[in-house]
Amino acid sequence: MYQSRLFLSTLRESPADAEIASHQLMLKAGFIRQLASGVYSYMPLGLRVLRKIEHIVREEMDRAGAQEMLMPVIQPAELWKESGRYDVYGPELIRFTDRHQREFALGPTHEEVITSIARHEINSYRKLPVILYQIQTKFRDERRPRFGLLRTREFLMKDAYSFDQDWEGLDVAYRAMYDAYHAIFTRLELDYRAVEADGGAIGGEGGTHEFMALAEIGEDTIAACNHCQYAANLEKAEAVTEQAGVDSEQVPPSPAIERIYTPDVCTIAQLQQFLHIEAKQIIKTMLFMVDGRPVAVAVRGDYELNELKIKNYLTALNIELADGSAIAANASAAGYIGPIGLTIPLLVDYSVLAVTDGVAGANEQNHHFKHIHAMRDLDLTHVADFRNVIEDDLCPRCQTGKLTFHRGIELGHIFKLGTKYSESLSAAFLDQSGKAKSIIMGCYGIGISRILAAIVEQRHSEQGVVWPKEITPYQVHIIVISYDDELQKQLVQGLHQRLLQLDIEVLIDDRAERAGVKFKDADLIGIPYRLIVGKDAADGKVEWFDRTTNSKEVLATEAVLEQLKRIYCP
Amino acid sequence: MYQSRLFLSTLRESPADAEIASHQLMLKAGFIRQLASGVYSYMPLGLRVLRKIEHIVREEMDRAGAQEMLMPVIQPAELWKESGRYDVYGPELIRFTDRHQREFALGPTHEEVITSIARHEINSYRKLPVILYQIQTKFRDERRPRFGLLRTREFLMKDAYSFDQDWEGLDVAYRAMYDAYHAIFTRLELDYRAVEADGGAIGGEGGTHEFMALAEIGEDTIAACNHCQYAANLEKAEAVTEQAGVDSEQVPPSPAIERIYTPDVCTIAQLQQFLHIEAKQIIKTMLFMVDGRPVAVAVRGDYELNELKIKNYLTALNIELADGSAIAANASAAGYIGPIGLTIPLLVDYSVLAVTDGVAGANEQNHHFKHIHAMRDLDLTHVADFRNVIEDDLCPRCQTGKLTFHRGIELGHIFKLGTKYSESLSAAFLDQSGKAKSIIMGCYGIGISRILAAIVEQRHSEQGVVWPKEITPYQVHIIVISYDDELQKQLVQGLHQRLLQLDIEVLIDDRAERAGVKFKDADLIGIPYRLIVGKDAADGKVEWFDRTTNSKEVLATEAVLEQLKRIYCP
Repeated sequence: MYQSRLFLSTLRESPADAEIASHQLMLKAGFIRQLASGVYSYMPLGLRVLRKIEHIVREEMDRAGAQEMLMPVIQPAELWKESGRYDVYGPELIRFTDRHQREFALGPTHEEVITSIARHEINSYRKLPVILYQIQTKFRDERRPRFGLLRTREFLMKDAYSFDQDWEGLDVAYRAMYDAYHAIFTRLELDYRAVEADGGAIGGEGGTHEFMALAEIGEDTIAACNHCQYAANLEKAEAVTEQAGVDSEQVPPSPAIERIYTPDVCTIAQLQQFLHIEAKQIIKTMLFMVDGRPVAVAVRGDYELNELKIKNYLTALNIELADGSAIAANASAAGYIGPIGLTIPLLVDYSVLAVTDGVAGANEQNHHFKHIHAMRDLDLTHVADFRNVIEDDLCPRCQTGKLTFHRGIELGHIFKLGTKYSESLSAAFLDQSGKAKSIIMGCYGIGISRILAAIVEQRHSEQGVVWPKEITPYQVHIIVISYDDELQKQLVQGLHQRLLQLDIEVLIDDRAERAGVKFKDADLIGIPYRLIVGKDAADGKVEWFDRTTNSKEVLATEAVLEQLKRIYCP
Repeated sequence: MYQSRLFLSTLRESPADAEIASHQLMLKAGFIRQLASGVYSYMPLGLRVLRKIEHIVREEMDRAGAQEMLMPVIQPAELWKESGRYDVYGPELIRFTDRHQREFALGPTHEEVITSIARHEINSYRKLPVILYQIQTKFRDERRPRFGLLRTREFLMKDAYSFDQDWEGLDVAYRAMYDAYHAIFTRLELDYRAVEADGGAIGGEGGTHEFMALAEIGEDTIAACNHCQYAANLEKAEAVTEQAGVDSEQVPPSPAIERIYTPDVCTIAQLQQFLHIEAKQIIKTMLFMVDGRPVAVAVRGDYELNELKIKNYLTALNIELADGSAIAANASAAGYIGPIGLTIPLLVDYSVLAVTDGVAGANEQNHHFKHIHAMRDLDLTHVADFRNVIEDDLCPRCQTGKLTFHRGIELGHIFKLGTKYSESLSAAFLDQSGKAKSIIMGCYGIGISRILAAIVEQRHSEQGVVWPKEITPYQVHIIVISYDDELQKQLVQGLHQRLLQLDIEVLIDDRAERAGVKFKDADLIGIPYRLIVGKDAADGKVEWFDRTTNSKEVLATEAVLEQLKRIYCP
């Protein structure tokens, strides 16, 4: 492709409303253009990258035995009512009525549609197992679209769905998808982690992993081990308290509990200051309403409680902090709640067990207890992990490395759905004994357009991105200093022919622009390998610039072709 | 692909609501499934065909120098208001409001969006010419979706847009697209015609062609020459009247006009019966209101008037048949209108000139004139082509062949838009002299999903379709009579390896089904070349079945591979 004919406008300045690097650079490089808030057009270069990402996803899904199909954007509201999600989904679901006043939605996901297909097409165990996928545009009316392609209202997704007879089958499918995702993100040269995640609204029973690209701009926090592959969302990461196994008999004795007057001393910080103690000597106790019942939870003062873990421990649906009246009815005043003398259930985080001479609220206004010895003084019926991990916590998996925190961009998400949709939408099959059973399902998504943004976030400098070689819009960028110069032109045309024969995609900057403009644009466009054709053309030589290593070399054209063959035609 | 693992359900019976062959067969073959009225899912085999059609379209568009991009489905209503189409488009435009009460539409076409991109990106003649295209899902809320993929509410289209400095540039782009369309439909092995068409609501000034697949089920009538390439929509086809150039001096004299009493004789048929004459001896005259003004139009009694031609001759916007009161005011009673003695403009179709002893209304109740000699008696200020062509009319292009009528399915449509959108949406560029000018645009659509249906309509028997070789879901279908038989299995696995090496896509029916079931399914699936592996496997032989010619042959596997190489790897 000759750049003089390419439909491309680069920008010198970052648009004012682009807050993050990937958004700025994709606009500056002319890869995307905004049509409306959270709605983008892909310009020719941007689309080439998008299609190549699609291609990798497709190849790896096919390799994993998944079969591609294509479901509609328009989905009848009845299906969403059947699954029970029509009301739950809220304003993110874009709804419209057709000319006959029938209700429809624009698909933000396709569980309902695929399950309605499965209930017609899969009637026997003989049709199982099967994994189906599609690459389709999705719609979600985000309250606040932002960050360019990271949070849009119209986006491209790969969504796959597995169908099995039993949970063992689902495990196999889940593993195949898990492996395919690793293959995809590895080919995309992404720095990513497979993260144990919570299912959220979409999940049914069973496991779920998020695939997160590590990036400062990410909206999620991941705790990852610096030694092994363990990684989890902050809210899901398991805390290991080194002293968890403390044996009460080995603990040195501490004085008996003493009630002290602590007027207007309510917070951990106030207590530290008032008593000249460390936060970890304090037992922080909070009151929650869990599915409507009051529960107290105690954690060491230097940690934060994790509501998800409390909820999961109690297999509850809802959890919220108790308000003043609930506190008054069940414990005392806010700021003076403590783990001793309660009449409601008490959950104790492992971290508390290490407290041998601690301070806690006395369940009485303006009073605390001191000299608390957890193993001696607390009701330890419910001891478990109820806190958020912090950096440098021991890894719960390898018990060797330490956890470090990262920000992450969610690229993919895999779920074991089980029978969540097959039951509500009546997708059953006859097993070998002729008995009707609900199909066991899994679902597996990848945000294709979001990957573009994540890659730019990870691989950019101020000048521009450097694309991974499998998805670069063109594989090599030839910059001709003076295309008017007959020698340069001939050398380039010769190279072009050779590259065509090798099936190597080339972008040739033949424009009548200053060299500086060409280099600036080339930096923005981000092709990893660059040839500069200038005065050395007289000697049949060009400058080879490898942007992945920032190394330059003057080479004969044959040597350049050898380089490119090594890179692209192994 | 082993068929035992393929996600495919064929049907034995045609679904009751499928009226036409392509709809029936694509459902029976499990290529598509309906989700809602006019909304379909593509199952794995159907999607393979669709993707291959896309691939051909993409290759030929790229070859023609067009550049691919991708515009959003969601379009802001403001753009449609700017172009003036928001109100005009009517209920076919699917509209919705987002959570912030902003109005949006689902794109049925992208002129507004591409023009809004052009007005930002194309500011100078240096950026012209350019042709952009996309392959994107479109939405149209059809009042009555029907005929499977022929008339849907969600469909896949290729739409291209050209941008030029002047009309000469547009002619070049238009020609390039015209040629690319021929290349595409030829590769798809379609029986089609490029038809001169009327622009309809979408068109601006300039030419337009429709590409129509010939098929009985088609909703349009095409007049095509049986000698040359001329073809036109019925309403647009030019009529050649052989006597058009009649010289009045060479006409034999006829008696003078005579007023006759014709009580209750109003129609051509009644007049023929009453006077014992042929229709072609009658001059039929009709009164129209054209942009509010009355106009009389005369045509020979054996022809039909063409309102589009009248409208175009008068460069008018609206035309409708005059009602009784308008007739009374300007001519006489309905049934007795005639071309003589009118005070309003009279348009005369060429066909009338040949009438030398004709009959026409006398503009008086219950009276006609006879012995009318057109060249002698009529006001011939406005003589032109105002009639529909009929079968066997002389071809207006080659003047040698005759016109035959066909039914057609519209596959593609190309338009010279001119400045219709660039003016309303202010897309201007600076020309070489620094003057701002509106960009000259063209637009070029192809209905990708509709092509599937058209191909099935043209290439099916009762048993199923036979796909063209470039878009068959798999290139060869191996049917194994007994996959349990070790000899058959080994032969097939050997063939499979060889075919993989040749990059020939194979579908292997390894199911434990009766041979009859396998053949029936194979007929439905429609792969053009079939190998039957049965008892001859012991001799290393298989039956080769070429469905394009219905010829069968028992061949050694090497010979089969040679055949396939000849077909697919030339």
